[in-house]
Amino acid sequence: MSTIAKKYGQVALINTFTVEPSNIDALVEELNEATEKVMSKRPGFVSANIHRSLDGRHVANYAQWNSKADFDAMLNDPASREHRDRLAKIASSVSPILYTVDAVHGGEASGA
Amino acid sequence: MSTIAKKYGQVALINTFTVEPSNIDALVEELNEATEKVMSKRPGFVSANIHRSLDGRHVANYAQWNSKADFDAMLNDPASREHRDRLAKIASSVSPILYTVDAVHGGEASGA
Repeated sequence: MSTIAKKYGQVALINTFTVEPSNIDALVEELNEATEKVMSKRPGFVSANIHRSLDGRHVANYAQWNSKADFDAMLNDPASREHRDRLAKIASSVSPILYTVDAVHGGEASGA
Repeated sequence: MSTIAKKYGQVALINTFTVEPSNIDALVEELNEATEKVMSKRPGFVSANIHRSLDGRHVANYAQWNSKADFDAMLNDPASREHRDRLAKIASSVSPILYTVDAVHGGEASGA
């Protein structure tokens, strides 16, 4: 389970992929493998949450990192670059955008 | 606090806006108002999580609904349409995509 809340310094990558429906399984598999083998082992990794669109044409990764510095260090890691190259070959477009959480409405009361 | 997990029937809307940096505050305000006054009152609303991009050019709403039927009912509500029209006027592009959660890596151990 991942949690979304305003957390000082934490960044959220929302990476949206457009993909031919026949390639969606391969894309999801590659994302799972990249996450398990590389990203999740890097300092500052918090979570990666892989989503499939109902129309079968998009995949989104909602990923959380403890800081922008941790995220940038991962980007510069050659092993992560290899996986990104593979993802870019399977998808027809990739749109990674880095965010911070501004407001949370609803959800559940925080235990903190 | 919102939580991301595989939950039967639940859908996640990831709505990505592109916006002139000078309009980002107005866009976030309108999203907060639409959420508080309309969306959060509709059956099946779970959460809306408003994000600002680090480059000031994008806003994302990661919103959760109990079912696609609840989400569709909200879409057909004239009050929600008014807010969507206002958001579309402030943003230079709007890209709403409906997903289900496929895999969660990392995060926290679930209490369930």
